[in-house]
Amino acid sequence: MKDKQYAIGVDLGGTNIQAALVDGSGEILKGLRLATKAGEGPEAVIAKISGAVRVLLQGTERSPAGLGVGVAGQIDPSGEAVRFAPNLAWHNVPLQAALQQQLELPVALINDVRAATWGEWLFGAGRGCDDLVCLFVGTGIGGGVVSAGRMLSGSSNTACELGHITVDLHGPLCSCGNRGCLEAIAGGWAIARRAREAVAADPQEGAQLKEMAHGREDAITAELVARAAHAGDPLAGRIVAETTEALIAGATGLINTFNPERLILGGGVIEGLPELVQQIQQGTKEKALQIACENLKVLPAQLRNAAGVIGAAALAMRQFGNQRQAP
Amino acid sequence: MKDKQYAIGVDLGGTNIQAALVDGSGEILKGLRLATKAGEGPEAVIAKISGAVRVLLQGTERSPAGLGVGVAGQIDPSGEAVRFAPNLAWHNVPLQAALQQQLELPVALINDVRAATWGEWLFGAGRGCDDLVCLFVGTGIGGGVVSAGRMLSGSSNTACELGHITVDLHGPLCSCGNRGCLEAIAGGWAIARRAREAVAADPQEGAQLKEMAHGREDAITAELVARAAHAGDPLAGRIVAETTEALIAGATGLINTFNPERLILGGGVIEGLPELVQQIQQGTKEKALQIACENLKVLPAQLRNAAGVIGAAALAMRQFGNQRQAP
Repeated sequence: MKDKQYAIGVDLGGTNIQAALVDGSGEILKGLRLATKAGEGPEAVIAKISGAVRVLLQGTERSPAGLGVGVAGQIDPSGEAVRFAPNLAWHNVPLQAALQQQLELPVALINDVRAATWGEWLFGAGRGCDDLVCLFVGTGIGGGVVSAGRMLSGSSNTACELGHITVDLHGPLCSCGNRGCLEAIAGGWAIARRAREAVAADPQEGAQLKEMAHGREDAITAELVARAAHAGDPLAGRIVAETTEALIAGATGLINTFNPERLILGGGVIEGLPELVQQIQQGTKEKALQIACENLKVLPAQLRNAAGVIGAAALAMRQFGNQRQAP
Repeated sequence: MKDKQYAIGVDLGGTNIQAALVDGSGEILKGLRLATKAGEGPEAVIAKISGAVRVLLQGTERSPAGLGVGVAGQIDPSGEAVRFAPNLAWHNVPLQAALQQQLELPVALINDVRAATWGEWLFGAGRGCDDLVCLFVGTGIGGGVVSAGRMLSGSSNTACELGHITVDLHGPLCSCGNRGCLEAIAGGWAIARRAREAVAADPQEGAQLKEMAHGREDAITAELVARAAHAGDPLAGRIVAETTEALIAGATGLINTFNPERLILGGGVIEGLPELVQQIQQGTKEKALQIACENLKVLPAQLRNAAGVIGAAALAMRQFGNQRQAP
């Protein structure tokens, strides 16, 4: 019975592990969250994931299709190992085999942003649509693209690093070493950096921001800049305007590149500045090629930070559902 | 017999029509070229295409799989009509039905740049590779992308307008109305514009360029700028350097977006400045994410201006080959 199918999804980040039992319609039946404590090393983190999965499976009637794990890092093209996960300090960790051994379940690994794209595509703002771009604007910026009903993965499984499209070739340095990446202007870390620099350069103009940060420049975050902008602070307003401009430029390029039916915007920066969705819709309508955006809808992501676990579980259902299902 | 399969390819541009009989290995068996004379109207141009196809079919032993037509314009998602072709001044011309009626052959329409991408993919620099980006840098800039063995087409058949990715959000105006598109810096028309403006602004610095253009600023072309740069003219060298910088920024974004195995560079600007291929390889290696370009080769296109007819014919073979072939 297809409607009774379910799977476990895990979202493995540098700070938290989320795990959930998800059914075939994308509903979370049970979920839990625990601290990653990456410093304890890969074995401890893997044991923690296994433990969480066992807790979720207690009392369930039949075995799930499998386990999907979204990882904040790069997955080997074979899908067997985490190649590099900076926030976990992992290099070449054979996560698939380790979890399969401990749990006796088939395990699929996927990059966390791509997992979130699966989630939004199948059960969120992308439902029913086969051509979409997801852009997640958080501390960093990542994305995923579905074209003609297929998720793009690239030749070594690292496609859709959409935070690292160049939008301003003379722009600020990015953490990747390049200059003027979308993330280097519109990512949460870049918004915070610009605000801190502006406050340091002009304390009078920066007075409100600094006050809101209890006098500590280093406590100025993107979230705080968003709140200050909403409260009418001109400096924060300027920083938000620059962010909006860069997001419109990046989104315009993505629309001209992919000609999607939906552009789905998620992540903490979008959640803090929800008006961005409408502004990006308006801005891209003016700047993108008319024919490339005539069918386009710009929409907020729907699943928020559950997109990753739901998408990872959906991937496991797709990948393993048939082989483990009774006919 | 698959190896005996063949098709007709047509490349319909604003100035010329190219037509060729192409075999299943991408070889041109016969070809011809005639002036489009778009001013005579769609009916006259369509009659000219039909005439060219009939000439190519004279004396051939068996009927071709079909006819593929690459058009310098936008093709309706249904593949039936040319929606808009600025250089032909065509709006909604039902080219497929007209040619099918006149020729009694199945006809496939495709955008000309996408046809050239098919050509390079199957028979040129992309042979054997399932993840590639073609970037054609001519008067304008266009492209095509193959991901996991599929040509991207987008939700309304206009994907891969790669000349209109924003690389410099405060940069020069583009013909599309946006600012800082890759084409607005690195397209042939933009190179010529920048050179003319520089010559007008500083006649002394522009003396060599103007002399090479026989004293006429408006005769300065991208091709002339390339020759002047090769001859050591500092102004032309600076314009070429700006062009190179923009192409590296654009290519970096495309590599981070698509994680391709090959980036194939063609078009008149690349042919006039063949050193760009190596410079873009070097520049993107420095600027793109390491993991996104570790398998990457940057290569010159191989089929030059035959890519369009070969690709259009290949598309017709793919689309119609089986249905018309004896078993």
